[in-house]
Amino acid sequence: MSSIRTLVRGGLVITATDEIHADVLIENGRVAALAAHGSEVANAWTAEHVIDASRKYVIPGGVDAHTHMEMPFGGTFSSDTFETGTRAAAWGGTTTIIDFAIQPKGGTLGEGLEAWHGKADGKCSVDYAFHMIMSDVNASSLREMDRLVSGGVSSFKLFTAYPGVFLSDDGQILRAMQRAGSNGGLVMTHAENGLAIDVLVEQALARGETDPRYHGEVRRALLEAEATHRVITLSRVAGAPLYVVHVSAREALAELTRARDEGLPVFGETCPQYLFLSTENLAEPGFEGAKYVCSTPVRPKEHQAALWRGLRTDDLQVVSTDHCPFCFTGQKEMGLGDFSRIPNGMPGVENRMDLLHQAVVDGHIGRRRWIEIACASPARMFGLYPQKGTIAPGSDADIVVYDPHAEQIMSAGTHHMNVDYSAYEGRRVTGRVDTVLSRGVPVIRDREYVGHPGHGGYLPRGLCQYAS
Amino acid sequence: MSSIRTLVRGGLVITATDEIHADVLIENGRVAALAAHGSEVANAWTAEHVIDASRKYVIPGGVDAHTHMEMPFGGTFSSDTFETGTRAAAWGGTTTIIDFAIQPKGGTLGEGLEAWHGKADGKCSVDYAFHMIMSDVNASSLREMDRLVSGGVSSFKLFTAYPGVFLSDDGQILRAMQRAGSNGGLVMTHAENGLAIDVLVEQALARGETDPRYHGEVRRALLEAEATHRVITLSRVAGAPLYVVHVSAREALAELTRARDEGLPVFGETCPQYLFLSTENLAEPGFEGAKYVCSTPVRPKEHQAALWRGLRTDDLQVVSTDHCPFCFTGQKEMGLGDFSRIPNGMPGVENRMDLLHQAVVDGHIGRRRWIEIACASPARMFGLYPQKGTIAPGSDADIVVYDPHAEQIMSAGTHHMNVDYSAYEGRRVTGRVDTVLSRGVPVIRDREYVGHPGHGGYLPRGLCQYAS
Amino acid sequence: MSSIRTLVRGGLVITATDEIHADVLIENGRVAALAAHGSEVANAWTAEHVIDASRKYVIPGGVDAHTHMEMPFGGTFSSDTFETGTRAAAWGGTTTIIDFAIQPKGGTLGEGLEAWHGKADGKCSVDYAFHMIMSDVNASSLREMDRLVSGGVSSFKLFTAYPGVFLSDDGQILRAMQRAGSNGGLVMTHAENGLAIDVLVEQALARGETDPRYHGEVRRALLEAEATHRVITLSRVAGAPLYVVHVSAREALAELTRARDEGLPVFGETCPQYLFLSTENLAEPGFEGAKYVCSTPVRPKEHQAALWRGLRTDDLQVVSTDHCPFCFTGQKEMGLGDFSRIPNGMPGVENRMDLLHQAVVDGHIGRRRWIEIACASPARMFGLYPQKGTIAPGSDADIVVYDPHAEQIMSAGTHHMNVDYSAYEGRRVTGRVDTVLSRGVPVIRDREYVGHPGHGGYLPRGLCQYAS
Amino acid sequence: MSSIRTLVRGGLVITATDEIHADVLIENGRVAALAAHGSEVANAWTAEHVIDASRKYVIPGGVDAHTHMEMPFGGTFSSDTFETGTRAAAWGGTTTIIDFAIQPKGGTLGEGLEAWHGKADGKCSVDYAFHMIMSDVNASSLREMDRLVSGGVSSFKLFTAYPGVFLSDDGQILRAMQRAGSNGGLVMTHAENGLAIDVLVEQALARGETDPRYHGEVRRALLEAEATHRVITLSRVAGAPLYVVHVSAREALAELTRARDEGLPVFGETCPQYLFLSTENLAEPGFEGAKYVCSTPVRPKEHQAALWRGLRTDDLQVVSTDHCPFCFTGQKEMGLGDFSRIPNGMPGVENRMDLLHQAVVDGHIGRRRWIEIACASPARMFGLYPQKGTIAPGSDADIVVYDPHAEQIMSAGTHHMNVDYSAYEGRRVTGRVDTVLSRGVPVIRDREYVGHPGHGGYLPRGLCQYAS
Repeated sequence: MSSIRTLVRGGLVITATDEIHADVLIENGRVAALAAHGSEVANAWTAEHVIDASRKYVIPGGVDAHTHMEMPFGGTFSSDTFETGTRAAAWGGTTTIIDFAIQPKGGTLGEGLEAWHGKADGKCSVDYAFHMIMSDVNASSLREMDRLVSGGVSSFKLFTAYPGVFLSDDGQILRAMQRAGSNGGLVMTHAENGLAIDVLVEQALARGETDPRYHGEVRRALLEAEATHRVITLSRVAGAPLYVVHVSAREALAELTRARDEGLPVFGETCPQYLFLSTENLAEPGFEGAKYVCSTPVRPKEHQAALWRGLRTDDLQVVSTDHCPFCFTGQKEMGLGDFSRIPNGMPGVENRMDLLHQAVVDGHIGRRRWIEIACASPARMFGLYPQKGTIAPGSDADIVVYDPHAEQIMSAGTHHMNVDYSAYEGRRVTGRVDTVLSRGVPVIRDREYVGHPGHGGYLPRGLCQYAS
Repeated sequence: MSSIRTLVRGGLVITATDEIHADVLIENGRVAALAAHGSEVANAWTAEHVIDASRKYVIPGGVDAHTHMEMPFGGTFSSDTFETGTRAAAWGGTTTIIDFAIQPKGGTLGEGLEAWHGKADGKCSVDYAFHMIMSDVNASSLREMDRLVSGGVSSFKLFTAYPGVFLSDDGQILRAMQRAGSNGGLVMTHAENGLAIDVLVEQALARGETDPRYHGEVRRALLEAEATHRVITLSRVAGAPLYVVHVSAREALAELTRARDEGLPVFGETCPQYLFLSTENLAEPGFEGAKYVCSTPVRPKEHQAALWRGLRTDDLQVVSTDHCPFCFTGQKEMGLGDFSRIPNGMPGVENRMDLLHQAVVDGHIGRRRWIEIACASPARMFGLYPQKGTIAPGSDADIVVYDPHAEQIMSAGTHHMNVDYSAYEGRRVTGRVDTVLSRGVPVIRDREYVGHPGHGGYLPRGLCQYAS
Repeated sequence: MSSIRTLVRGGLVITATDEIHADVLIENGRVAALAAHGSEVANAWTAEHVIDASRKYVIPGGVDAHTHMEMPFGGTFSSDTFETGTRAAAWGGTTTIIDFAIQPKGGTLGEGLEAWHGKADGKCSVDYAFHMIMSDVNASSLREMDRLVSGGVSSFKLFTAYPGVFLSDDGQILRAMQRAGSNGGLVMTHAENGLAIDVLVEQALARGETDPRYHGEVRRALLEAEATHRVITLSRVAGAPLYVVHVSAREALAELTRARDEGLPVFGETCPQYLFLSTENLAEPGFEGAKYVCSTPVRPKEHQAALWRGLRTDDLQVVSTDHCPFCFTGQKEMGLGDFSRIPNGMPGVENRMDLLHQAVVDGHIGRRRWIEIACASPARMFGLYPQKGTIAPGSDADIVVYDPHAEQIMSAGTHHMNVDYSAYEGRRVTGRVDTVLSRGVPVIRDREYVGHPGHGGYLPRGLCQYAS
Repeated sequence: MSSIRTLVRGGLVITATDEIHADVLIENGRVAALAAHGSEVANAWTAEHVIDASRKYVIPGGVDAHTHMEMPFGGTFSSDTFETGTRAAAWGGTTTIIDFAIQPKGGTLGEGLEAWHGKADGKCSVDYAFHMIMSDVNASSLREMDRLVSGGVSSFKLFTAYPGVFLSDDGQILRAMQRAGSNGGLVMTHAENGLAIDVLVEQALARGETDPRYHGEVRRALLEAEATHRVITLSRVAGAPLYVVHVSAREALAELTRARDEGLPVFGETCPQYLFLSTENLAEPGFEGAKYVCSTPVRPKEHQAALWRGLRTDDLQVVSTDHCPFCFTGQKEMGLGDFSRIPNGMPGVENRMDLLHQAVVDGHIGRRRWIEIACASPARMFGLYPQKGTIAPGSDADIVVYDPHAEQIMSAGTHHMNVDYSAYEGRRVTGRVDTVLSRGVPVIRDREYVGHPGHGGYLPRGLCQYAS
């Protein structure tokens, strides 16, 4: 008995390497075949559902490797739940998110993981997976890492920042890296010198420098570079690969570049906010700058060129969002009069694919590289490829029909994230998601949400495919 | 009326980005479709010709972007004609070569191109294209460049080596780069400081140092690095991209790496001889070392690790052969008693795909990177992609069925190149070409040559796809 | 009434810049004049004491900027008192030492300083000054820094090593640097990542790797480089100069070099043990390696060339001894079966001038650079110049008559340090101290000790003369 | 019988290492002795001539290692003769110049040297020496180098610039370096890629870009850096030291810095025009910019900070003037309507010491470094130390009494160089020469010229003292 088939016809299929005029045939939620548009074999295809992709791009669903849904921070929670967050992701053409479960201080990794499964289970519109944040590296949690890796949670985030909250000391980081080096896991680091930053924060506040823009000043680019250099060294000593999250400073990128020039297995991620926003936003009048408070912070504009260069020559491999929204009203406002109390984080899961397409339009990157940094590389980095991140026979049919000619204006008034502002309010971009399939099932159809919570399933992951 | 169809069934299709268990359907010499092996759609396919690729790799035919067939050098000619050379290429899984036409001193580019068309026309077993060597940069030949670019010869090689033969001075190189910068062409350089090398050659011979190994000593790695740095600078001044051929010294690679870290559009090629051979070969007893005389020379073994690193992190993009064979007897022997009279060049067009597969087996590179550096990147670099270099709907059906488990021993006794020695004599490698299709037509079938001269056609090329 | 005069006649006076055949006239413990040997003015000079320096060098007394006399460490004390240590210094041609007073944990800087004054007062054969080790950076000790700077203790040592003992965290180091940046003090750092090293120590011991050579293996060169990079960054953030003590790894030197290439006011010291000893010594059979246990550790031999290069091109400015002797019997033996319990430190205050002269003989450095790195630069670095470190009108008459032709064999049997072994046992060197004047008064005369405890006085210091 | 004595009393004697309040006693044209001011021995001194230096600096006479008196260039001659030029030098506190003799094309080194002796003999107010410009490197001139080195002309300048005039090709430069490497000579290079520059010149003129500012645009900083990298490589291959003249681009300095970080014996000179002038001067309205046309050209202002950094950390060792004046009227005007015909060169021999003192006032360098880069280092570099470049017993009594408090305004109206403009017209500087002794004889006394042509003698030089 034959399965139900969907046919995406007439579009330009773009993957990390190819741009082909091809029809895509879906069987049972997977890509069954691609055929040259107009070929005899393609012309002979029939299907229950036919999507006309003429004059559109047909691209893999985005893989956002860095989100924080319902994350506790400074006495509040990020404002998107897994339900609202994954629905917004779908709207933005992202069909997989990897969120961060958090080990409770004094608790086990397993407890943290269980809590996050509880938040996500049955709520998601698209598929999801988990990284693990280690808040407490000790003999027991080190042993637990092995079990997580074999169970599909193969990446572990550690912090050189946030003393007293997430910070692990260099000995703990080294131990975790050594363990990952032996069990195939991948250590991710938030690389900023948090101890030094806390001194500068205290001094700034003492001088009466309380506005959001001082958030960007105290979190010095040099202190991101320093921590980046340090974790690279620790990973060399451990003989383990390393993934540095949300690289924002050109000096930090320079450390990654130098390490890669020596052939070390170190990898880097940046985020749209570092590519499109700057300290000028942090300095917006009144308390507006609070909208752009995240860590690492946005940097002066001249850092952007370095990040684009890194993305072009593969010194940065991944663009994720670090989606961690807090409403301006009631949440960001907790930091009125003291920038250090502003919850750190920004919305973005819905904007990433569009902003990066704008980068194609602007000439920063090519079309294939767009797909590579937004879909294929994150999937490979975190053990989801080729199930996710490409359109190839056998892959999950996570497919976006993307209109490269449509224009849109980003705005809190029209976005679907559960947050009361947009970091890109009023920005006009070219390109827009038309239709989104998750495992062959429409979630967005012709710019209408047709999905439902619970369609999205949990994805146990394999190992990093770059670090062998 | 339906076309004749060929079906390659059951193999693992490897491209620069994907590894998929897929059947490949060919119509009219082109890839019409790929379907997941075992899918309903694939199971329904029928074809006139079915090739069983079970337990085999199905890969794009190799693209060798650097060959010299019938090339005049020092009073003799390289020993492979286009007929013997392209047949050997096919045996080795290479279905496209780009050879170098040479502008005669005092003549036009057009004259050189015509001469090379004359050598190749009707002789080739697989498709071919041309680069142009500029021996005489002047106002007229500069103007001629525009016509060549629009006519499909979009790359131009210049030399900082070989004074009195091919050397262009820095002013000439700058002018050619400027022209390429405006007409979309790509300047390729042989980067060694030939003027300094000639001094060292003269001094070595005067000291009685006449053996082949002195060829490696006088052509100092530093002098390759110097010229590499120089042509990079000239390309910056010209605002034009640059492709450096046959990079062999780690110091030269370091210059490319530094340039790429700054975001410059500079690219590099290395060759199997630099990855697998060394000055130890040049120092083989008697006159044996002459077999390995080529320029740039092979280097001490420790340079190899740097080159592999460069290939892994994309500071080198292409592995070509610089195939330029001279028989040991009668040709290489012209340099008995004077290494400077040994014809420069080595055979290799048949060995490249296998040697690079061995590098996969040895862990230097991954499978997809193998295909990228040997097929996809050279095709993109020289404007042949996606017609060549990948297996995707719409591409030419240049397909190799490759047995990754078979073992072979490289030898002049069994190879098909028209040269009386193998640079890899006795080397055991894992992996072997079984079947080769050129535009859907078998050239090698189950390790038997079934092609014929004249099947291969001339390929006008587009522009470099990296340099925009 | 005229003062008592001493005349040093006929020698070659060598300072950091000049080599002159000059007679030196001393009045009242100071250099009054230099005159060209044989000039009318020199010929007319008379003096109560005349020292014949014919065929000898006349050099400034050495300034050893890094000693630890009677220092508590791991339950014992370094074996030289100020009495024995400064006598040995004089024997070796060193007329000034700068020792490290230690702030007691929980105590004040003042208490530490007072304790060290108590140890030194009335005991020293040559002049001495103090640095301050900060064990406890807090609001009170930060304030205290100002008073010390103005009182003549203008340099403060902090540790990224020795967790639980001396380690300051990065926030504390930053605060101390900021304070020094404003009060003119100079922060010195012991730069090794102690937290990571402690992990490696624990793991090595758990593997049964207890011999002295493992001391060298766990204290990885990369972890010295990392900490060096880190303190450089912190000093940039603080806007303060930095002096890194006992640099031993070429990777650490590379960090200093890079910083200096950017024009940063960072300085580095190395020690004779890193220039003349290596991990081969640490691996001497039995427990002999314990003699060479110090931190940073001695490195593989190939690091030495990098250090000499650094000394030649001024990326390292100072050679001190880090003199901190522990007897093999009873002290070093505390670490039998556990290298981590071996007291860290080596004797050397008597050997430095001779070893560095041997480096002149061996061609590593020139004669003037010998005097610069051993006398002039440490005096300038720590605010004692030109009182100390040179022979110029007005300087203290700390003068050594040095026989560059005499040979000696270094040995515990003949040295004057209070320690039962020599790190250079049996080493033959060319060059020997003949006579030593401290403020014009002979301490060593014709290789006989004629000094006495209490001659040496305390030297309040000015500010670093490099860091303006 | 006693000689005539001069006493310089009460000043602050500044040398490359020391700053001492000392009286200086001169006998027979040489420094006989220094004594602490106020010491008994100093108080007892008497002399025929006493110069009161109270509140003044007493410094060594400047050594200008790069001048071109009466140099033929583009159909004219630089406007200062040895008579006018050395008189102006004395006015500016410079007591030694090293001028460049030029080998005539097709002639011998000896002929060139003889011609320059003819120009200088009997004309000079202060002492002088010669470098040799090699216009024609061939077997004969290479042999001649040995004779010159032993005869006191130990440095040889070669050009990668000025094709058809001075340019040597890389083979010739390598041969000259090899010869210098064996005979102790020092190769100096003018490092710009002249062949590439000539292309840019031709193209600029063809576009109608004829104004002086285009001189700065076509002589790209990158092309200085390229040539600098190239000559560094050639010197490595030759195993010889290298001195790069008139470094102006930060990118060129970066090449020197990198080489020195690797321990190579490469040295660099810059000039006041690169430290104090910029492309803003070249762009002065009308034809005024022609006054600042020299090669290498002045650069954008931001290069200045890099040069000061290089001077501070000894990546640049020497500041010379490249004094080569051409009058604006009649000479510079030859390039009206064609910047390439403007004679290359600027006046400066009189301004150097004052401008560098201003740099002390401005905080770019310290006082001792002022003397080092202007006096001691050039003397050491070119084998004149300690006869010249310092004030020490035995040195020539080339002494300047310098008033650090006086102010002056630089102007063609008051300067003594034979040229109708000042490159620093109207610039107010602090510091001024009061009195100048050449070998003990006053040339300038209390700001009056009291010297005479012929006092200055020819100085045969020894070998470079840095390059051993």
